[in-house]
Amino acid sequence: MHPNRVHDLDFAQVDIGREQRQGLPEAVYGPGKTPAQIRAIVTELLRDNTGPVLVTRVDAETATDVLAHVPGGTYDALAGLLLWRRPAEPVGFALTVVSGGTSDWSVAAEASAVATAVGLTVTTVHDVGVAGLQRVLRVREQLRASDTVVVVAGMEGALASVVGGLVGCPVIAVPVSTGYGASLEGITALLAMHASCAAGITVVNIDSGFGAAMAAHRLAWAGRRRP
Amino acid sequence: MHPNRVHDLDFAQVDIGREQRQGLPEAVYGPGKTPAQIRAIVTELLRDNTGPVLVTRVDAETATDVLAHVPGGTYDALAGLLLWRRPAEPVGFALTVVSGGTSDWSVAAEASAVATAVGLTVTTVHDVGVAGLQRVLRVREQLRASDTVVVVAGMEGALASVVGGLVGCPVIAVPVSTGYGASLEGITALLAMHASCAAGITVVNIDSGFGAAMAAHRLAWAGRRRP
Amino acid sequence: MHPNRVHDLDFAQVDIGREQRQGLPEAVYGPGKTPAQIRAIVTELLRDNTGPVLVTRVDAETATDVLAHVPGGTYDALAGLLLWRRPAEPVGFALTVVSGGTSDWSVAAEASAVATAVGLTVTTVHDVGVAGLQRVLRVREQLRASDTVVVVAGMEGALASVVGGLVGCPVIAVPVSTGYGASLEGITALLAMHASCAAGITVVNIDSGFGAAMAAHRLAWAGRRRP
Amino acid sequence: MHPNRVHDLDFAQVDIGREQRQGLPEAVYGPGKTPAQIRAIVTELLRDNTGPVLVTRVDAETATDVLAHVPGGTYDALAGLLLWRRPAEPVGFALTVVSGGTSDWSVAAEASAVATAVGLTVTTVHDVGVAGLQRVLRVREQLRASDTVVVVAGMEGALASVVGGLVGCPVIAVPVSTGYGASLEGITALLAMHASCAAGITVVNIDSGFGAAMAAHRLAWAGRRRP
Amino acid sequence: MHPNRVHDLDFAQVDIGREQRQGLPEAVYGPGKTPAQIRAIVTELLRDNTGPVLVTRVDAETATDVLAHVPGGTYDALAGLLLWRRPAEPVGFALTVVSGGTSDWSVAAEASAVATAVGLTVTTVHDVGVAGLQRVLRVREQLRASDTVVVVAGMEGALASVVGGLVGCPVIAVPVSTGYGASLEGITALLAMHASCAAGITVVNIDSGFGAAMAAHRLAWAGRRRP
Amino acid sequence: MHPNRVHDLDFAQVDIGREQRQGLPEAVYGPGKTPAQIRAIVTELLRDNTGPVLVTRVDAETATDVLAHVPGGTYDALAGLLLWRRPAEPVGFALTVVSGGTSDWSVAAEASAVATAVGLTVTTVHDVGVAGLQRVLRVREQLRASDTVVVVAGMEGALASVVGGLVGCPVIAVPVSTGYGASLEGITALLAMHASCAAGITVVNIDSGFGAAMAAHRLAWAGRRRP
Amino acid sequence: MHPNRVHDLDFAQVDIGREQRQGLPEAVYGPGKTPAQIRAIVTELLRDNTGPVLVTRVDAETATDVLAHVPGGTYDALAGLLLWRRPAEPVGFALTVVSGGTSDWSVAAEASAVATAVGLTVTTVHDVGVAGLQRVLRVREQLRASDTVVVVAGMEGALASVVGGLVGCPVIAVPVSTGYGASLEGITALLAMHASCAAGITVVNIDSGFGAAMAAHRLAWAGRRRP
Amino acid sequence: MHPNRVHDLDFAQVDIGREQRQGLPEAVYGPGKTPAQIRAIVTELLRDNTGPVLVTRVDAETATDVLAHVPGGTYDALAGLLLWRRPAEPVGFALTVVSGGTSDWSVAAEASAVATAVGLTVTTVHDVGVAGLQRVLRVREQLRASDTVVVVAGMEGALASVVGGLVGCPVIAVPVSTGYGASLEGITALLAMHASCAAGITVVNIDSGFGAAMAAHRLAWAGRRRP
Repeated sequence: MHPNRVHDLDFAQVDIGREQRQGLPEAVYGPGKTPAQIRAIVTELLRDNTGPVLVTRVDAETATDVLAHVPGGTYDALAGLLLWRRPAEPVGFALTVVSGGTSDWSVAAEASAVATAVGLTVTTVHDVGVAGLQRVLRVREQLRASDTVVVVAGMEGALASVVGGLVGCPVIAVPVSTGYGASLEGITALLAMHASCAAGITVVNIDSGFGAAMAAHRLAWAGRRRP
Repeated sequence: MHPNRVHDLDFAQVDIGREQRQGLPEAVYGPGKTPAQIRAIVTELLRDNTGPVLVTRVDAETATDVLAHVPGGTYDALAGLLLWRRPAEPVGFALTVVSGGTSDWSVAAEASAVATAVGLTVTTVHDVGVAGLQRVLRVREQLRASDTVVVVAGMEGALASVVGGLVGCPVIAVPVSTGYGASLEGITALLAMHASCAAGITVVNIDSGFGAAMAAHRLAWAGRRRP
Repeated sequence: MHPNRVHDLDFAQVDIGREQRQGLPEAVYGPGKTPAQIRAIVTELLRDNTGPVLVTRVDAETATDVLAHVPGGTYDALAGLLLWRRPAEPVGFALTVVSGGTSDWSVAAEASAVATAVGLTVTTVHDVGVAGLQRVLRVREQLRASDTVVVVAGMEGALASVVGGLVGCPVIAVPVSTGYGASLEGITALLAMHASCAAGITVVNIDSGFGAAMAAHRLAWAGRRRP
Repeated sequence: MHPNRVHDLDFAQVDIGREQRQGLPEAVYGPGKTPAQIRAIVTELLRDNTGPVLVTRVDAETATDVLAHVPGGTYDALAGLLLWRRPAEPVGFALTVVSGGTSDWSVAAEASAVATAVGLTVTTVHDVGVAGLQRVLRVREQLRASDTVVVVAGMEGALASVVGGLVGCPVIAVPVSTGYGASLEGITALLAMHASCAAGITVVNIDSGFGAAMAAHRLAWAGRRRP
Repeated sequence: MHPNRVHDLDFAQVDIGREQRQGLPEAVYGPGKTPAQIRAIVTELLRDNTGPVLVTRVDAETATDVLAHVPGGTYDALAGLLLWRRPAEPVGFALTVVSGGTSDWSVAAEASAVATAVGLTVTTVHDVGVAGLQRVLRVREQLRASDTVVVVAGMEGALASVVGGLVGCPVIAVPVSTGYGASLEGITALLAMHASCAAGITVVNIDSGFGAAMAAHRLAWAGRRRP
Repeated sequence: MHPNRVHDLDFAQVDIGREQRQGLPEAVYGPGKTPAQIRAIVTELLRDNTGPVLVTRVDAETATDVLAHVPGGTYDALAGLLLWRRPAEPVGFALTVVSGGTSDWSVAAEASAVATAVGLTVTTVHDVGVAGLQRVLRVREQLRASDTVVVVAGMEGALASVVGGLVGCPVIAVPVSTGYGASLEGITALLAMHASCAAGITVVNIDSGFGAAMAAHRLAWAGRRRP
Repeated sequence: MHPNRVHDLDFAQVDIGREQRQGLPEAVYGPGKTPAQIRAIVTELLRDNTGPVLVTRVDAETATDVLAHVPGGTYDALAGLLLWRRPAEPVGFALTVVSGGTSDWSVAAEASAVATAVGLTVTTVHDVGVAGLQRVLRVREQLRASDTVVVVAGMEGALASVVGGLVGCPVIAVPVSTGYGASLEGITALLAMHASCAAGITVVNIDSGFGAAMAAHRLAWAGRRRP
Repeated sequence: MHPNRVHDLDFAQVDIGREQRQGLPEAVYGPGKTPAQIRAIVTELLRDNTGPVLVTRVDAETATDVLAHVPGGTYDALAGLLLWRRPAEPVGFALTVVSGGTSDWSVAAEASAVATAVGLTVTTVHDVGVAGLQRVLRVREQLRASDTVVVVAGMEGALASVVGGLVGCPVIAVPVSTGYGASLEGITALLAMHASCAAGITVVNIDSGFGAAMAAHRLAWAGRRRP
């Protein structure tokens, strides 16, 4: 299979070669697509790829429609994720998803669901706000045992700095658009995570649990290639 | 002495009544004023007020000029503060100034110098970055014993949230314009401190060690009035 | 009771120790939580803490559901506040909440309700816009007799500067998201309050009546500890 | 003289007709122009117009050069203004320029110098900060006797709202780029003045003492035309 | 009647003295007030003032309720304005309201209705976009005959600069929140009007037809006072 | 027909002369206009112009109303475009509209429909995201054969840089408001397209498929004039 | 010569194939490069390309150094442009560069110099501010006779809208970073040009005279290819 | 050695335990520290840690002073990096640093120097701008063979999306503050990288070559721990 192979569906050019290039079929971003378009793209991907096929940010109604036409899939309502096929076996990569408050739940759910779908072993820890520091300190060893930690936090995003100082493994920070006023719909958390005093933290887009999971997949995929 | 009394110096209207209204003579903001103007204002304040007279953000050259003409003053170069008269006795208010990094030093110095000048008892703790959480945890008891804590922090300003969760006393956060890129010259820290998940933190202007000290003075002043 | 004690509810880690650390049980931020989650958290807090338990920004429907399951609470619809238990006796701290216009009413209501719930003695003054300066001048003595003044103001937020110049006690400014156009949903008021020419004013997040009340509680709590 | 007449100097097209259209020769904005260019433009304006000719924001060196070549002019160093010819007689329009602090001095100076140059009768009041409200209250009657008030204020710009509520005549607010941090180089004052709760205030560009004076000139010019 | 007289309605402090200070009763900003509150405030104003009483930004339902209880008023649906009493006679001040496109209609309507209500003589010219310059040039003489021109324009707001260069009388620019993308809901027009190359233009808040009319009233009021 | 001719409809001044000045009748921007207003304007334009008459951003309901009263028109629902009359013959100008994802579809549709309506020969290529570079490389020759390429892209807008480096013909970039978080509703794509490292790219407003098509029409119109 | 040919200079990969792809050798952006680097790149481009070689934004000192080592070049100090080889013959494309004020001169100079260098026939018109509309109206026919108009304007950028409404040919707007306060260093002009009510205007980056000239070159190049 | 061990130098609290927690001694941020402070901190770190000791963003003068007092170090002037001790042996992790233009050189140099110092095997590729796509395509296989790719890019930052689509391994994007106008000193590149259509890219702060290298070290460190 050629790494540059493309299926032309007129409304979409399905990147069939991505699985060979990056170890994972192209993931489909749901918003703005009709159920019919999603069905067509998913059908292409299932036929010509062998790995998990994902559609993100799908509402329940669309999910029901698509699942009725493309059998074998499942829907995770909290994460908004449609999924066909899981990896044959987990890749043996321990990911911990830590979130700062119950408001961050749905973003953490997307990160967890996508990461699980692509074969990572995911543990989640909720409500680890830095205003009660003992909550993060009591899971310190669990964080340190992870291959990677995803930190999901809105408001001021300080949890990323705190976790970044506790562990030596990669920390992927996800700013969340919760909060009000000076939170600026996640912009403040995004900026604060970039300005963090903890060295080597990386950041993905606001609310992008998907992006964090895909970044973790890149780590796992690259790690597996190495002898 | 009337609380609304004013001296008209043509270029300035000196608010003589402020000491009666707020327990402290008007403080002079140095930038944009000539040495001659500062000398004139300070002379008025010394004559008609009895408390400490402060000029902030003064460079060394201006300070030398003013001190040569208005005797009895001192200059704190690190804090950029000119001062005449200290309070007769400290007011018995324990203020701790905590800063997040050596880059925040001059702002912390302004906060400490002004607070000391107006009669507070100040302790300073430097370099308490949240990327090494043990540094803040080891001074936890000291923070808890304070009447108020001033947190001086640039970058992402996470130290304010952490301290705010550790102590029950007032926390006054000072965002600092250190850092680069996403720090946006202190705007990020200011926004993050406002979006903090620690309840009841208050914030002053970027780099305003003076503002934090004056806010602490208001606390001490109001506390002393109460039976 | 240990200051770091935590209850793990899976979806939340209830910070039981906060009452010991900060003199007040953890307050619950309502938005984004289901009634069932609120009920569970409140039940934990009531069982293991002794002080007032608050849930903020709750709509009427959620309030009815929660109150039906967790007896003994009351709901303040204007402030959006659920409350169980008041302090045994008021702490003897006089707080005045001043607001600039009728549009600021609900934020002022949240500040007043929360402050009252945690034991402060609250007086409110409405519609003190600076465009009719006599309105603030006529309550000048009342403001000066307060232990702390909370200023709630949208639009340009000038009321904070005016009050800050009239009183010597702590002034906590709450920018409000009312107004249109250049008000930028409260950002302008927040920035203006920080740039205020009145020394020692502190600021909390936009629309955060809760934050202002909690800041006032910190003042009262610290003041009571002092001999 | 035709209202659309233009002199083409290759590098500039001098709007000779403006005096007829608007009652005042075109004013020259100094920055970015060489002394030779300024000399050529001023010479054209003096020859074909009869009213005052102004060049704004000129430094001392440029002023000396231009005055040496184009006789009859004067230079106001504080305002940065070059001026040839005054109106034959003042137009009988009373303008008061009020500024909030000594840092606003140079902007107030530009407003005063330009307004005087175009025939208005100008009174200035300095250092009327709202943190000492008595300072503005004591000049209340003077403000009320004005035909127009120009308010020059940096920081949070609250003085515009206060003056706007005290007088019924036109109020032209000039935000100033003094202050630091949240002042955002005058943006905060500009936004706050627009969001002012005092009805009917108008605003000009940051630091534009010139713009305020020209707006006042429009008022005076239109007023004189009326029977 | 004292210029500082206030009626205290508990939820509002009605500024009765404003009519004496500024020649016009306090205008009521409708949003955020209940019909009952509006009725009470209007009743106070009608009883103790003699000039026109205005409530702005009122929807039809609220208007019907208030008019049923407070007789003698009228409602202008396009402008969203409730009005009781007109001035006994127009003040003889010619105001032209020019707007740049049909999308700016409602803001122009508010400006016209308020200005008419307070006694000005208003002419309106619609759809004078600068992309068809002949549309503004053909009304040039009409503009030049005005005592003041209000320019209502969204998008890039260039109409204000063009009109500002054509007339010598005061120009009050109202940025409008129409347009999309780079229009930033009126912020771009507001900034562009401030950066205008036409000298002496003044600007009011985004969408504030009311503010422009009140600024025009200040001009008329001050002009009438002069001999 | 005079290039400055205008029809005055009271609520609108129809720019009849634009067809002579710019080769195309005035296009009508639909939002904010009533069906009756659109009908009246279109009727004027059809009577006194000879080229295609367009109304943009029209919803289906308004379209049905207008078409029922003004015969001979057609409605393109995806593009939101009402159209009367096509050019007698295409102008022989090959335009390619390339879009980056299915979310950009409606903006690309507006660009295509408007460009076709004014006589250009349009080819569309969908879903050419740069994350699968082979998708743009496989249409490289098609792009190079175009007279102009319109690039429609949201998110980071990188497609404009890539296409700009592949072709020598004009590239008109349209930022799209799709995406979330750091996309800032198209502002990020707009800024990124301006900062592009590919020389000579031009940019139109966010989501303005209409603006891109009109810019292409200018190119075609100017090209046809040349010998 | 292959369109993808690259020379690897270690510190730079010279895009030799660009001339074949886009009709013009790669242009060199001067800032951040040492004279030695510029010399090496220019030498490569001269050897393997046949068209004009440009280095932009070069200061006089660097220019002197480079010209001493790479003979045959010329330096335009006002435009900051180094140039080797002109096109054998002009391409017969009439470009007019219009600027709004003398402060925009250097940006207009860069546009003119680069456009001339790549074979266009350039006319420049200076100081066409919209505050004196007759200045643009008197060059109306000249503008209409152009193949393309580049509008260089700072402050509010209104000139682009005015010119866009007068001509039917392509209009390329260059926002300029002159002005102060609300000009926001060119951001306001950039936004205003995008929000322009004149249809089909395109915009390039702030101060990018180079970008405008290159966009014009794309137009000329594509036009020449057409039969 | 305890992971929470701290040395208190009064002006700094050296985080001795970080090497045990995170596999690397605390790195020192140079700006704002005196040479004496740097010397003291480095001496502490060398005594109580065993790994490489780094000081970043050091100018030549400071470097000379420090190296004279603390022997055994080296200075990389291009990267601004002071270094003592390299790891005993490289960790066998292949990092490629790709930069988009010669202006990005110093940031790429910091990334390379820091990564090399902490034991990674670094390859650098310069001047891979997307405007000449063949430049990135010709190093495609080299990129694909990397364990991680750091992409350093200013302007619009599109290189990150292109590389992100070509490789499956982790991609760490570093926005650079080069460019002008719409580049907004790196903010545009930062936002664009977050909005990238390539899934799983992560981003660090503007100009933070150090941050990217530390993020890569986390990957290598975590990878080595795994069996």
